[in-house]
Amino acid sequence: MADQITKRSENYSQWYNDLIVKADLAEQSQVRGCMVIKPYGYAIWEKMQGILDSMFKETGVQNAYFPLFIPKSFFSREAEHVAGFAKECAVVTHHRLMNDPDGKGVVVDPSAKLEEELIVRPTSETIIWSTYKNWIKSWRDLPILCNQWCNVVRWEMRTRLFLRTSEFLWQEGHTAHSTAEEAQEETSRMVNVYAKFARETMALPVIVGHKSPNERFAGAIDTQTIEAMMQDGKALQAGTSHFLGQNFAKSFDVQFADKDGKLQYVWATSWGVSTRLMGALIMAHGDDNGLVLPPALAPIQVVMVPIYRKSEERDAVLGEMNLLKENLSKMGVSVKIDDRDTLRPGFKFAEWELKGVPVRLAMGPRDLQSGTVEVHRRDTLTKETMSLDGIEGHIVQLLSDIQANIYRKALAFREQNVEKCDNWEDFKEKITQGKFLLCHWDGTAETEQKIKDETKATIRCIPIDSYVINEEGVDIYSGKPSKQRVVFAIAY
Amino acid sequence: MADQITKRSENYSQWYNDLIVKADLAEQSQVRGCMVIKPYGYAIWEKMQGILDSMFKETGVQNAYFPLFIPKSFFSREAEHVAGFAKECAVVTHHRLMNDPDGKGVVVDPSAKLEEELIVRPTSETIIWSTYKNWIKSWRDLPILCNQWCNVVRWEMRTRLFLRTSEFLWQEGHTAHSTAEEAQEETSRMVNVYAKFARETMALPVIVGHKSPNERFAGAIDTQTIEAMMQDGKALQAGTSHFLGQNFAKSFDVQFADKDGKLQYVWATSWGVSTRLMGALIMAHGDDNGLVLPPALAPIQVVMVPIYRKSEERDAVLGEMNLLKENLSKMGVSVKIDDRDTLRPGFKFAEWELKGVPVRLAMGPRDLQSGTVEVHRRDTLTKETMSLDGIEGHIVQLLSDIQANIYRKALAFREQNVEKCDNWEDFKEKITQGKFLLCHWDGTAETEQKIKDETKATIRCIPIDSYVINEEGVDIYSGKPSKQRVVFAIAY
Repeated sequence: MADQITKRSENYSQWYNDLIVKADLAEQSQVRGCMVIKPYGYAIWEKMQGILDSMFKETGVQNAYFPLFIPKSFFSREAEHVAGFAKECAVVTHHRLMNDPDGKGVVVDPSAKLEEELIVRPTSETIIWSTYKNWIKSWRDLPILCNQWCNVVRWEMRTRLFLRTSEFLWQEGHTAHSTAEEAQEETSRMVNVYAKFARETMALPVIVGHKSPNERFAGAIDTQTIEAMMQDGKALQAGTSHFLGQNFAKSFDVQFADKDGKLQYVWATSWGVSTRLMGALIMAHGDDNGLVLPPALAPIQVVMVPIYRKSEERDAVLGEMNLLKENLSKMGVSVKIDDRDTLRPGFKFAEWELKGVPVRLAMGPRDLQSGTVEVHRRDTLTKETMSLDGIEGHIVQLLSDIQANIYRKALAFREQNVEKCDNWEDFKEKITQGKFLLCHWDGTAETEQKIKDETKATIRCIPIDSYVINEEGVDIYSGKPSKQRVVFAIAY
Repeated sequence: MADQITKRSENYSQWYNDLIVKADLAEQSQVRGCMVIKPYGYAIWEKMQGILDSMFKETGVQNAYFPLFIPKSFFSREAEHVAGFAKECAVVTHHRLMNDPDGKGVVVDPSAKLEEELIVRPTSETIIWSTYKNWIKSWRDLPILCNQWCNVVRWEMRTRLFLRTSEFLWQEGHTAHSTAEEAQEETSRMVNVYAKFARETMALPVIVGHKSPNERFAGAIDTQTIEAMMQDGKALQAGTSHFLGQNFAKSFDVQFADKDGKLQYVWATSWGVSTRLMGALIMAHGDDNGLVLPPALAPIQVVMVPIYRKSEERDAVLGEMNLLKENLSKMGVSVKIDDRDTLRPGFKFAEWELKGVPVRLAMGPRDLQSGTVEVHRRDTLTKETMSLDGIEGHIVQLLSDIQANIYRKALAFREQNVEKCDNWEDFKEKITQGKFLLCHWDGTAETEQKIKDETKATIRCIPIDSYVINEEGVDIYSGKPSKQRVVFAIAY
């Protein structure tokens, strides 16, 4: 199994694709740029959804559902937004097929042309704010805190499974507030929800910060982001939260009467994470044997592989395993017993390593006699023989240790690969070696663009909660004055 | 509040629309035929999803995700299927917008025409079976039991909120099996899951049966259905499960090597329920005061309304309510305290009745003194004053009683409105009075069609588990021999 995966050192990008396909996470569909998320991959995404959804709801957010289609004219209402978003998209122009008059099959019925074309949503600000117009009359109607889990489409020329696909799944939160301050607080609250989720659930260390103007969401006043480092040293933007000011309220004429009866435009935020998180999870923790799942997201946390020759041995081992499974299930641990009779244990070991199951237990007739079990950790690839006595508590603790260790390992890797840099020649060299560089920047879009043109590096963020270095200095490229360092990296 | 709703007796259809809008369940969007599902409506749908999803998983089903778009040519592969499905649909023909050369706004870029048009999925058999082709080689790969929760689009000329919208949300299960028997068992298993869910969770009595050939799903060999009676006596098809034979396997060339190494075509099922269930829930249980929610689906099971004049009274009552809320929450009851200070209790009572909350508790200063609370049931609109001592246990029991009572009431209504009928003149009269008629049918599509043409009545199903009457008789219309009675009704 594992030898079917390209090694990371040979070709990181191929390793990523191999892993996704071999671990049954997803595959290319027969529709250009669209993926099929397979059951094992979808089970991980469902876990992400469940945990995030609870976190959103704890902050007062409610789920809702808005239409898939957006009338073309809506995209003309918010000028900046359309420039950033409405270009590469799926356009519905007709609403009927008919039998091909020339023979078999079906053709588009030319008489069923829509009066106005519909765009498959690339993001839903426009349709949602046109709806909020009817929901909001007075300050009493605010805040509105809605989220939707849905599919969106952005026509992509070059696609990669999970990272960039024409259709992807995501959640998009859209909130409406009576003051700028409240909307800004919401923007920060949600980026912090994402950071907490990334760190605690995905075991993914992230840098929280503001985007530079060039990298902001189309139509936003401020975009906050969580940025993660992959094992090739590239950055992956894992979630964003936008303060939209009154831009959409003005475009869709959404006003509320304040407590003095005065009409004011509503303040907005939007925030989202997508199936891209699956890509981050794979690339941050996977190794040459396959996926490494943090226990908090593993659909199967413990797999048990019976070792036997004779059918009496099989029965005895499976009997013991079923007891253990029952006990662990009661403690909230998800367990699978791999009792397939046609495969050798070694094959099963490799398969579950490929699929990233955090803990593997193997048990044979000799273990039964001695009251022991072999416990294997996916994260360290180490194993030890342990007593069955009290094993349940040990496994619960082990899962918690693995979760912490995966985070620690990813954090240590990042720490090794974040450097201050003050020399342009060094910058050009180090940025290609997969470093995040903390550099002074003069704050202009012009300099940022020139650096990108020369090196492909972009400002990933102006850090908020770690790597915050407020100090005087000079821009690494232009030599102009700067007041703080920002994070440069080459991004996915 | 409630007086804003049309009475059922005046205009049942208007009552339905009024209720949906006033209870904040959903609304028409600005996109023709597409609805916005508002947070309160979506919370009910989420409850349905959660419970159904667990029931599916208990049978071994796993979730996955397949593309939104289907290449047009796929629809030409399964002849019957295309005839039934591919006609009224959303067709994507272009993948880019551009700035309008003549001025403001955006237009479709004519140079970005797709080589092959893409259809927004009206159902996913074709794209899924084209995918299964790559997943299935041997009998070891079977069965495949996949489900997806997603949106689908069927271009509808006349739409009604939840019942018939161009875009709707649903789940579609697609399973692959090595034998016809196993696929048939799966078809029955899933229709029974739907029936159990309808009866136990939605408190909706349903008739389980086979569809007549005219009413079968396009491409199915057998369609099983659950049919519910609404309060106007019309039938609503609430869920279907299809045995697809080898039709899709043959169209997409999906074969497996059996244990003898012989190639065989795979056997298929598909099954689905949609946001239409929301319509069934509303129409089966609602009354002139608004929605009546079965406790199993109520986002808020108990609402508490404080009664007070002075702020000390308010504090004291809310203090007691918070204690009670905490105790009830621990017992798994979802509680909301309506502490809005700007609204009178009577207004709040009407609002929560409109929203169908099963139990309402009102408490004032005198209740505090006497250690009592006023308990109001939404289903019967009755109230009684009860001691606070042991109230938690009483409420849990009450919720269970309400769940049972709503079912019993709907069942009694149906029983009163299902009749045997053996006379064609009677048939024509009674079918317009909102009756389900148990009639003999000669088994021909021709007779079924004639009855539909004359009366709009269709065969809702050939019953399996209730109203099964196997007896000799003569067709109510043609007079030809018949071996069992079927259910005729006018349907939504």
